Amino acid sequence: MDLTKRVQIKDTLKKISQEVILAGWVYRRRDHGKVSFIDLRDGSGILQVVSTAGTKIKEPKNGWGLESVIGVKGLIKKRPAHLANPDLETGRLEMEAYELEVISPTGEALPLDISKDIDKVHLDTLLNYRALTLRSLKTRAIFKFSETLEAGYREFLKEDGFTEIHTPKIIPAATEGGANVFRVDYFGKDVFLAQSPQFYKQMMVGVFEKVFEIGPVFRAEPHYTSRHLNEFTGLDAEMGFINDVSDVMAKLEDCILFIAEKIEKEVKSGEKKILDFPELKIPKGGIPKITLTETVKIINKIKGSRGDAIDLDTEGEKILGEYAKNKLKSDFLFVTEYPVGIRPFYQMPTEDGKFTKSFDILFRGLELGTGAQRIHDPKMLAQSLKSHGLSTKDFKDYMDLFNYGMPPHGGWGLGLERFVKQWLGLDNVRLASLFPRDVKRINP
Amino acid sequence: MDLTKRVQIKDTLKKISQEVILAGWVYRRRDHGKVSFIDLRDGSGILQVVSTAGTKIKEPKNGWGLESVIGVKGLIKKRPAHLANPDLETGRLEMEAYELEVISPTGEALPLDISKDIDKVHLDTLLNYRALTLRSLKTRAIFKFSETLEAGYREFLKEDGFTEIHTPKIIPAATEGGANVFRVDYFGKDVFLAQSPQFYKQMMVGVFEKVFEIGPVFRAEPHYTSRHLNEFTGLDAEMGFINDVSDVMAKLEDCILFIAEKIEKEVKSGEKKILDFPELKIPKGGIPKITLTETVKIINKIKGSRGDAIDLDTEGEKILGEYAKNKLKSDFLFVTEYPVGIRPFYQMPTEDGKFTKSFDILFRGLELGTGAQRIHDPKMLAQSLKSHGLSTKDFKDYMDLFNYGMPPHGGWGLGLERFVKQWLGLDNVRLASLFPRDVKRINP
Repeated sequence: MDLTKRVQIKDTLKKISQEVILAGWVYRRRDHGKVSFIDLRDGSGILQVVSTAGTKIKEPKNGWGLESVIGVKGLIKKRPAHLANPDLETGRLEMEAYELEVISPTGEALPLDISKDIDKVHLDTLLNYRALTLRSLKTRAIFKFSETLEAGYREFLKEDGFTEIHTPKIIPAATEGGANVFRVDYFGKDVFLAQSPQFYKQMMVGVFEKVFEIGPVFRAEPHYTSRHLNEFTGLDAEMGFINDVSDVMAKLEDCILFIAEKIEKEVKSGEKKILDFPELKIPKGGIPKITLTETVKIINKIKGSRGDAIDLDTEGEKILGEYAKNKLKSDFLFVTEYPVGIRPFYQMPTEDGKFTKSFDILFRGLELGTGAQRIHDPKMLAQSLKSHGLSTKDFKDYMDLFNYGMPPHGGWGLGLERFVKQWLGLDNVRLASLFPRDVKRINP
Repeated sequence: MDLTKRVQIKDTLKKISQEVILAGWVYRRRDHGKVSFIDLRDGSGILQVVSTAGTKIKEPKNGWGLESVIGVKGLIKKRPAHLANPDLETGRLEMEAYELEVISPTGEALPLDISKDIDKVHLDTLLNYRALTLRSLKTRAIFKFSETLEAGYREFLKEDGFTEIHTPKIIPAATEGGANVFRVDYFGKDVFLAQSPQFYKQMMVGVFEKVFEIGPVFRAEPHYTSRHLNEFTGLDAEMGFINDVSDVMAKLEDCILFIAEKIEKEVKSGEKKILDFPELKIPKGGIPKITLTETVKIINKIKGSRGDAIDLDTEGEKILGEYAKNKLKSDFLFVTEYPVGIRPFYQMPTEDGKFTKSFDILFRGLELGTGAQRIHDPKMLAQSLKSHGLSTKDFKDYMDLFNYGMPPHGGWGLGLERFVKQWLGLDNVRLASLFPRDVKRINP
């Protein structure tokens, strides 16, 4: 079979009553005597292929199981309306196969049948056989969704004048002063993996004013939860000449609204159906803002006293998520004015010196990311380092930046996988990472 | 001054005879008595600002040097034709300043004047003060060019049906079997930084057929040369259902042609002028292909005998670059048919088992990247591992992939920084990396 003449399954919609060659993987197979019904999957979709007694078959002696790679030549036909599969774009078509050739057979039985309900498979099994389970329609749809979300993020920022950058992931010192970083042996020297592009994106504000980066971020946090990954895709941005942190929040809000529109327009109806995700709620007036102090009151009122808690924990975030959804009709919530003591040294303090001009953004009760205005005055920064118990010497290259002239600036960092998890309502952030890394898992 | 009303310098072209507010950095400053000429730089461009005795100035007592951040309010006027700066889009305009306010002064003298000819500054100085030197117009233009090249790469592949992916950078084992990888302490366990997304992008062929990744790649190579970086941005791609490695080369060629067109169209004339790069030569018939065996003959003929060399060294690549340029009228060259013994175990051998269906692509005499068809038959792969002295046990997750059904496939990996270096004719690959990492440098 001449596979150079192959067409994509999605293009069979334009090939009704024509003979075509297709190639792909055997997703499902039902044999009824001489007649076989094969759901053929390629990169673009799924089509039912009907093989009968008349089909010329070239197959290995030992048979061929699910996920075997095959080529088929045959006629594209409409299926009777009552047999059409409404979940698939190509569900109203099928191929009557004249020839079928097995290109790469799967020999032994596969560890699981990925065409069955993948949601019921144990997470560890899903991840152990990731190269197989990623092929399920549901999982594919998750990562096409993720790709669209990322593309929307990039498109919005580029259109808005941001420059895309790549900053180093191998760094000489830990950004925040030491905790939760992975150590790398760099030609016999101890260096670290970047927890964020924080210092570098700030340096790039001096160059391009507005920059963003999409790239891996490494956190050596020992938490084993449904929300933590030790390597994830960071969606970072930083912008100069702001008046206040509210400019940063406004930009992030516009970015999210743009992404939402793009997803609405571009995610295919078949994938929307498979993913079956809830509609996004953002009130007309914009994403609501609440100070951390207010959130404590709200949580106490709903749940009873939290004692002297000064930051949000997982439970607090969930309560706030419900509160935002029900009372504020919003899936997102900005929590603002975190006390200086629990935020990094580079965040701009409020005028009274007690709080920071910073925010966390919650998405349906989960921290999606953090943002802030940064300190741009070298003396104030030296003071902040000192009061955080850090030494200016350890941050020399970073400190130098502020002697080169820096405007008021700020930015944010989000996690792509959490964004996808929350948008789609997935149980676990690992389901939004192709090959997740956690405290127990580095395979495959 | 109300900076919320600020406009971008590039937009002054539409504001002639209007009063506007600008903000940015002091790139140059010449004082002639009461009159000062300031070249103001923002993220979008440069404009001459003229401050006179009538300008209301709000400045700190200790003065303000180059790179100070200022805001200016004034009138946009045309400059007399003979005084216009033809190198800048906004070179025929200037601002007559009514008000000038210093927002962030630079106190002490800067380590160097970045508005002077940056090409003459020693590389180490350029890199030591990277947060400052990146602000020079030339350096900014390099990274805007790099951004356009990368955008072209992404645009071509997405349009062609490739899916963008992010694969893990922390991996359990070295892809090629051990050499040149950085070791990471992962919660007390020894793991590695990915030298390439090789195995993962192959796994993703089973999912989406055609995939690409743009992300950091880590090579613990101890070479200190003008061509090596220990962390660089990899441009990877992998595609299924190929007939042969020539399909991979054809796709890469189309991709390069697309990028060239985009650069021609989208790189601004001002930046083209600053970068002053040679025109790209690709013959009508496409990028020429030469087998490694033939290249040895060519090099021997030009240079005299290389003895029993079986791979290309730096000098050989340079000679081939000259040969391709002069004899074949091409800036690119595919070198094909590398012997099995000097290539990774996963590359598909030719039918006689002596060579691999692989290629290197040279760009003006420098290896830009490598590509190949991959082995997709599990038995052949096990055999190849053995003959490369490797154990199938160490590659279990990877080997499993080929029991899940894999079509003939192949792909490539390129280095973004080398691509930019060669295109622009830069002396050193470090100049195409924002914050380069080499065997001697991890700062800033």
